[in-house]
Amino acid sequence: MQNFDYRNPTHIVFGQDRLAELNNLVPADAKVLVLYGGGSVKRFGTLDKVLAGLGERQVVEFGGIEPNPQFDTLMKAVEMVRAEKIDFLLAVGGGSVMDGTKFIAAAAPYQGDEASLLKHGFAPPPIDGALPLGTVATLPATGSEMNMGAVVSYQGGKFPVMHPLLFPQFSFLDPSLTFSLPKVQVANGVVDAFVHTLEQYVTFPANGHIQDRTAEGILKTLIEVGPQTLAEPENYEARATLVWSATCALNGFIGVGVPQDWTTHMIGHELTALFGIDHGQSLAIIQPSVWKLRKTEKREKLLQYAERVWDITEGDEDQRIDQAIAKTRDFFESLGVKTRLSEYGVERGGIDKVVQALEAHGMVALSERGDLDLSVSRAILEDAYA
Amino acid sequence: MQNFDYRNPTHIVFGQDRLAELNNLVPADAKVLVLYGGGSVKRFGTLDKVLAGLGERQVVEFGGIEPNPQFDTLMKAVEMVRAEKIDFLLAVGGGSVMDGTKFIAAAAPYQGDEASLLKHGFAPPPIDGALPLGTVATLPATGSEMNMGAVVSYQGGKFPVMHPLLFPQFSFLDPSLTFSLPKVQVANGVVDAFVHTLEQYVTFPANGHIQDRTAEGILKTLIEVGPQTLAEPENYEARATLVWSATCALNGFIGVGVPQDWTTHMIGHELTALFGIDHGQSLAIIQPSVWKLRKTEKREKLLQYAERVWDITEGDEDQRIDQAIAKTRDFFESLGVKTRLSEYGVERGGIDKVVQALEAHGMVALSERGDLDLSVSRAILEDAYA
Repeated sequence: MQNFDYRNPTHIVFGQDRLAELNNLVPADAKVLVLYGGGSVKRFGTLDKVLAGLGERQVVEFGGIEPNPQFDTLMKAVEMVRAEKIDFLLAVGGGSVMDGTKFIAAAAPYQGDEASLLKHGFAPPPIDGALPLGTVATLPATGSEMNMGAVVSYQGGKFPVMHPLLFPQFSFLDPSLTFSLPKVQVANGVVDAFVHTLEQYVTFPANGHIQDRTAEGILKTLIEVGPQTLAEPENYEARATLVWSATCALNGFIGVGVPQDWTTHMIGHELTALFGIDHGQSLAIIQPSVWKLRKTEKREKLLQYAERVWDITEGDEDQRIDQAIAKTRDFFESLGVKTRLSEYGVERGGIDKVVQALEAHGMVALSERGDLDLSVSRAILEDAYA
Repeated sequence: MQNFDYRNPTHIVFGQDRLAELNNLVPADAKVLVLYGGGSVKRFGTLDKVLAGLGERQVVEFGGIEPNPQFDTLMKAVEMVRAEKIDFLLAVGGGSVMDGTKFIAAAAPYQGDEASLLKHGFAPPPIDGALPLGTVATLPATGSEMNMGAVVSYQGGKFPVMHPLLFPQFSFLDPSLTFSLPKVQVANGVVDAFVHTLEQYVTFPANGHIQDRTAEGILKTLIEVGPQTLAEPENYEARATLVWSATCALNGFIGVGVPQDWTTHMIGHELTALFGIDHGQSLAIIQPSVWKLRKTEKREKLLQYAERVWDITEGDEDQRIDQAIAKTRDFFESLGVKTRLSEYGVERGGIDKVVQALEAHGMVALSERGDLDLSVSRAILEDAYA
């Protein structure tokens, strides 16, 4: 096992009908900015429950945070925070709203150029303070509700922002708030959680026995519960399992002390930025092809994945790996998520644009080994095309 | 899944030779009380490294915290904290030192009768402050390094103390610091971690899919690594896996949203208090018999445990459960831990004393269902005797 630090202070409030407890968790004298997306939280009554939970506190609202939240949109909220002297942020929504809120929390007190906060990759940006924030999570997918990361869109790219000051102080996870989600968003969420787990698991062996077993447990659970919760959106138990799986897939726990490979995400981000493909869809396109091109580097963990997650024990090593890749693709397809780039209306020439964008964003040495260069990324994209 | 709250703010610093980082984690102006047990931390040089890590800070030492830490011993430390105006506690040792330090952290600022803090069971005692504390964990077993609980011995009983203010701010887990442990302590630690996991897992089904899979992963890992780390005490990777397994077994994560059954611990505590049987040994004695007496109540989870942890699929339900119980007992025995009360020099008449102690301590409605009364506890003890 590699040396590691692990610290995750977020208080999870899990269960149905608990939003009245906001009153205990938000400071009594806070002036609160409530942030949300396109308005479904209004339509389904979640916002009303949140406002009731906040009681007599001064509240300002900021709606309209779009999927893949844009720097320019978030800067409008930053201006509002400064003008209104807000001292607590409450995100009500999915990963985009939570990520956007984290960026606002970092940017509002920042004295320098806010866009520069996006230029630090996985390293923490140089902030020495952030507004406290909490979340009411309405979409099981990104894990943003229990981690310190965000992804912000800016000038045609998607940029991570990660800092320990950006952990939510609390996150409400009420599975019933997600019943009304469109099917496509739930399916995307299952894929997102699945691939988050894979990126921390299918690398090279590092004696992370607990981490591996836990990752395999999340994957097996998603395989069981994903189709079920799509078929029965109001089955509380199935949805609760998905919600908690998605949180656990990216709260840091399975990633401690082991190598990580965020290749699928990094290439996927460019597909979203260039072609507007949903984040979960972009992962379903790229993941199987990463493995086809990286069979050698990931051989041992791919074989472990094949056996422990899919019970594949027949055939020689290459056959078992191929079966595992096929099973994974089939799983994504079974959720209704297409896995070929050509199926999303992208011309083959689009691959050049993706490779150019990767180069422009410095994504020239990806993978758990740092040896996945642009030529391999191109080959992955070619393979993923059709 | 049941509603739950989860919050665990402890910062884990995992890996070899990191004690110099104490300097970053303990407040620079703190006056520190360093607490330890019988002196092995001196003998093996750990204390020197800790003191070096604390640099120029004012440091006072308190040694001699015994296994199953006694209230009277801990109160001497409380007096020292008050007299010396200590403002940070650093536990260097195993579960007893860490638990004792937590109690001291709660008791030192407490204005009332300190012994009353032991009378709240699993509910938080009425403290409104606690000294900050950190740990350097030298024995993989109790999980105290990453939870808010402690167990203190007082007037012939063992009493839990649990409060969110008692989470360590940080815990150093350096597997190499545990290489010099006596074999019996390592074996007891494996049993302790194993039974911690079981007490949160073998109850009744509650749709805790992630929790179940993670618990099964910890159990399988302990089955693999327990014998290995006993045979090769200086194999860093094996010991690192044990250390992290023991922490994960009782950091709260596998217990969220599911029923828990602390019967084995509660009966085991009386064996330790009355007969001086090591904590891990007491669990190995009681656990198999709890299951024999509670086959009906735990049937579904015992069958799941049999299949997923031990790959037992042959035979009818009762046969599969019996095999799982036998496998568990054999596992404990394979570590050198005896599983019969008679093997620890206890007369059969001692069972009466245990039942009386359970009654005196209010342990009259144990188990995940609250229906395990003294007659069942007696039957468990009779079964466990020989």
